[in-house]
Amino acid sequence: MNSIQTLGKLFGVGVGPGATDLLTLRAVSILNEVEVLAIPKSSEHLPSFAWRVCSPLVRENPEQEKLFLHFPMSKDPEILIPAWDKAFKEIGMRLTQGKNVAFITQGDPSVYSSWNYLREEAPERWPGIEIEIVPGVSSITAIPAELGIPLADGKERFCVLPATYGLEDLPRLVEDFDTIVLTKVGQKIPELVGILKELNLMENASYVSYATTDKQNIVADLDTIKNQNCDYFSTVVLSIRKRKGVLRGEAHE
Amino acid sequence: MNSIQTLGKLFGVGVGPGATDLLTLRAVSILNEVEVLAIPKSSEHLPSFAWRVCSPLVRENPEQEKLFLHFPMSKDPEILIPAWDKAFKEIGMRLTQGKNVAFITQGDPSVYSSWNYLREEAPERWPGIEIEIVPGVSSITAIPAELGIPLADGKERFCVLPATYGLEDLPRLVEDFDTIVLTKVGQKIPELVGILKELNLMENASYVSYATTDKQNIVADLDTIKNQNCDYFSTVVLSIRKRKGVLRGEAHE
Repeated sequence: MNSIQTLGKLFGVGVGPGATDLLTLRAVSILNEVEVLAIPKSSEHLPSFAWRVCSPLVRENPEQEKLFLHFPMSKDPEILIPAWDKAFKEIGMRLTQGKNVAFITQGDPSVYSSWNYLREEAPERWPGIEIEIVPGVSSITAIPAELGIPLADGKERFCVLPATYGLEDLPRLVEDFDTIVLTKVGQKIPELVGILKELNLMENASYVSYATTDKQNIVADLDTIKNQNCDYFSTVVLSIRKRKGVLRGEAHE
Repeated sequence: MNSIQTLGKLFGVGVGPGATDLLTLRAVSILNEVEVLAIPKSSEHLPSFAWRVCSPLVRENPEQEKLFLHFPMSKDPEILIPAWDKAFKEIGMRLTQGKNVAFITQGDPSVYSSWNYLREEAPERWPGIEIEIVPGVSSITAIPAELGIPLADGKERFCVLPATYGLEDLPRLVEDFDTIVLTKVGQKIPELVGILKELNLMENASYVSYATTDKQNIVADLDTIKNQNCDYFSTVVLSIRKRKGVLRGEAHE
């Protein structure tokens, strides 16, 4: 008689932007309940940022496996695809043993997270797999909270795009949006400063790196960092706010 | 001798989209530490949504004041401005007594939250006031988590706009963005369905109301709800995803 194999459940757990106390109660409880924590590392040699954020909240448990997986920082599919395939096989081995696996991810799983590749492939690799996504505090809102500048209220609109692609669309986007969040601005500051000067929007921009951590750095004048080697994962928020909320003077409907 | 008056600290605390266990540890701790919880209510007769979300985590404390404040649901500044002024005076009375006040807000304080009016006026009303914003899980990411559809990865871009204003811009925005989140779609479903049919994007749309609560409702075919009275605060996610991540076939850089 064949026994029917029951797959474990796969969780994508957002651990927030960097501060340990910005994890949700649900994330903490899942991280402590699952048999396997799958922990992505971008380098074999450096610690995992996401793990550093959440590990103080994970209770000692010799029964729980901490599965560190290497996801190289690269845009080359010939490097990425075999690395991801290897990592997915490790996860799959645990799922087919019936173990619940939580893949931890910085910020929120729906926003530029490597979790998405796993989520998209999972149903093909493990038919019938049950998936749960645990949303987290995203840097998209944690950074405006630190700056004290809202993303949007009233009639306002905001958008989020990687600065690594399509900065030439900014002149068009500043017409349509009140707040523009540019992610991964690290190498793009000089080009961005050029565009902002042409648009006369230098005073509307703020640069933030390592938001909510003890390394957080906020820079109001982007000219001062234009020639520096900025962190790849840093962010620029452009706050324009043409369409104002109902309480603000002229802008009543 | 005059004693120098010390103002209390003002917190804007995001309590997440609706599920109590999606509060952050930081939010829980601040809600239990402050002398005053300022709790917005849109109606004198209905319970506060934000308070229902977080109250199970607020410990019994007879020393802590629960200050319910009425913020009417209206777009008329002649109704809104006096109501807000009254609420702000109540908050100011506590702050000038040196009490710390946490204003609780559904979702995240930076995203369409009435908190922003208070944050903008606070430094004028109470010069020197210390303000801290505690980001929360926003429905902008909680809804994609429930749908299992990411907002963005790789080169993708997303934007967020209220459906109550500017739906006619959608044909332009679907060219520039991979995911479009429309908030407050309640009364706009018939108009939206018309636009989506012209753009041939009906299959890319999902409707969600009361996300993450036990009343959550997900609708894949917007035609079925076109003539219903939908909740004002419901959301439609348009997922197009033209620019794919580096692991996906054709789209390599």
